[in-house]
Amino acid sequence: MNALLGGRVAMRHGAGGHAMRALIETVFVEGFAATVDGVGLAAMDDGAALRVGDQWLIVTTDSHVVQPRFFPGGDVGRLSICGTVNDLAMMGATEPLGLTCAVVLEEGFPFSDLETIRDSMKAACAEAGATVVTGDTKVMPKGDVDGIVLNTTGVALTRTLVRDCELRPGDRIIVTGTIGDHGMAVMAARQKLELQGSLRSDVAPLNGLVRLALRAGGVAALKDPTRGGMASTLHELAAKSGVGIVLEEGAIPVRKEVRAAAELLGIDPLHVANEGKAVIGVRPEFADAVLAAVREHPLGRDAAIVGTCLSDWKGKVILDTGFGKRLVAEIEGEPMPRIC
Amino acid sequence: MNALLGGRVAMRHGAGGHAMRALIETVFVEGFAATVDGVGLAAMDDGAALRVGDQWLIVTTDSHVVQPRFFPGGDVGRLSICGTVNDLAMMGATEPLGLTCAVVLEEGFPFSDLETIRDSMKAACAEAGATVVTGDTKVMPKGDVDGIVLNTTGVALTRTLVRDCELRPGDRIIVTGTIGDHGMAVMAARQKLELQGSLRSDVAPLNGLVRLALRAGGVAALKDPTRGGMASTLHELAAKSGVGIVLEEGAIPVRKEVRAAAELLGIDPLHVANEGKAVIGVRPEFADAVLAAVREHPLGRDAAIVGTCLSDWKGKVILDTGFGKRLVAEIEGEPMPRIC
Repeated sequence: MNALLGGRVAMRHGAGGHAMRALIETVFVEGFAATVDGVGLAAMDDGAALRVGDQWLIVTTDSHVVQPRFFPGGDVGRLSICGTVNDLAMMGATEPLGLTCAVVLEEGFPFSDLETIRDSMKAACAEAGATVVTGDTKVMPKGDVDGIVLNTTGVALTRTLVRDCELRPGDRIIVTGTIGDHGMAVMAARQKLELQGSLRSDVAPLNGLVRLALRAGGVAALKDPTRGGMASTLHELAAKSGVGIVLEEGAIPVRKEVRAAAELLGIDPLHVANEGKAVIGVRPEFADAVLAAVREHPLGRDAAIVGTCLSDWKGKVILDTGFGKRLVAEIEGEPMPRIC
Repeated sequence: MNALLGGRVAMRHGAGGHAMRALIETVFVEGFAATVDGVGLAAMDDGAALRVGDQWLIVTTDSHVVQPRFFPGGDVGRLSICGTVNDLAMMGATEPLGLTCAVVLEEGFPFSDLETIRDSMKAACAEAGATVVTGDTKVMPKGDVDGIVLNTTGVALTRTLVRDCELRPGDRIIVTGTIGDHGMAVMAARQKLELQGSLRSDVAPLNGLVRLALRAGGVAALKDPTRGGMASTLHELAAKSGVGIVLEEGAIPVRKEVRAAAELLGIDPLHVANEGKAVIGVRPEFADAVLAAVREHPLGRDAAIVGTCLSDWKGKVILDTGFGKRLVAEIEGEPMPRIC
């Protein structure tokens, strides 16, 4: 294993691309190969799905280490609630039963910041119809951790399980709005870019929007393009489903200020993290209905059909620029540590 | 709030005593006062209990930051599984449905250590009949976190909900074995004490033992004396149940090497963390049967009846030394940072 991974953890192992998947597969999936009645670790989906009677219990977890912890459009508290609510929704579970909140604090952390973070969590919970039901508090001596690590785990029941491996050739790909907003806002805040004023994170709970999409019918796959951006998400969907995906570049919604910042930093918006967007794979005959349903929701106004699944190019993502086609690469290094 | 807590997070806010409870109550419980159908955050029990049909879904979370991460008798991996399995068991849920594992790694962390930790998690899962079903991986730049923060959350269903607030005068208190082993082993390893060779953490999954105790009947309360030790656990039980608790000092099992190390460091073993012990409150007529059942289990050989609940001295813990009685104080400062 050390030969494969290089002996020591590097930043790329947390970047959301294939180095991270290699780490998880090699260390954790091989370690916990136990059979689960449902969707376990080996599926590497957004969460687990466990059989409870005639329903699925969805369980999903995320630790948040974003830096800076307050950024335009949100903070680590809002992120921690939305991230977990969204991972539940991406499995088809749009009514959270409860969330946990485990906080690791650095000695000397200001209580006023903790209150602000708590208030953001509370507001995000209210938007999502969720609540925190249990928690844990640890304090580390000054210097042992940078400020705060915030873990949330969510549980929810659903009868409709949505996976990330069931796309078929012909299925259409919808993205629920503009891409790259979260990552560029955090990057700009960190680097104090000139244009940071106009950049805002999109961090938001998507369960309401997903509920509308599911009601419209024909949803074959759901995934939120967080670390690694749209590129990683589409690669995962393509690889797991055994299809190719072709994207129409002109159809992908990107704010002009995000595009400008991305050019300035030499980053492809397809590689930039989102925290309030979903990628929805839809059976072709339902594509227009799902698009219309998503656009009904305030978080889905800019939704668009951006791509189509192919029977060839399995596991690949192709960008049709209008002038020609090129393969989209997954993120390789780690341009943005601590993005979420 | 700042007046109460002092403006900034201090080590005592993670020590397991009343400063920690004040932080949790002031920041989190007041923030998330939403009503839950079951046991929520306000109960400050070992986890949450949510209604699912005619059963309870127990959810519990813990982050682990123990230092050193490898210590005599265990490591952070074993601790992370046992801590969560035990918190589920302390609510009466002895069959984990699944555990999550969210790991935050420092850039440069050796993969060989990660594999060792993973193997410990796997072995502890096998002992507990549990498995990891989903996870999350974050990497922080070198210096932003000391090595590893490991969060586990557990879910389990149970028909028998056991709380920490239902003791009555006359109930007996059982401890399932020797106290102080975990905390003293970690302390000794950290401080390179002479006697460290003979000290070993007791970290172990208690769900099998708790199953035997529940089968014997009459169990009124369960709690594992982790941070803050027996003293904090008994204070919580006494305060929540509205009883006093008197302990017979001579009946409390303490290894002689733990006693020696505690004396050397000037710490009361009642304040030292355990990771493989339970405190069981039992209706008096069941005390002997539960004690016998617990002693049947390999982890319960040294179990003893150590105390009795009183109708007066509500919320207090009294130590009967045989020569007289004194009040047991809760831990005040933070003698042992990063004990779990």
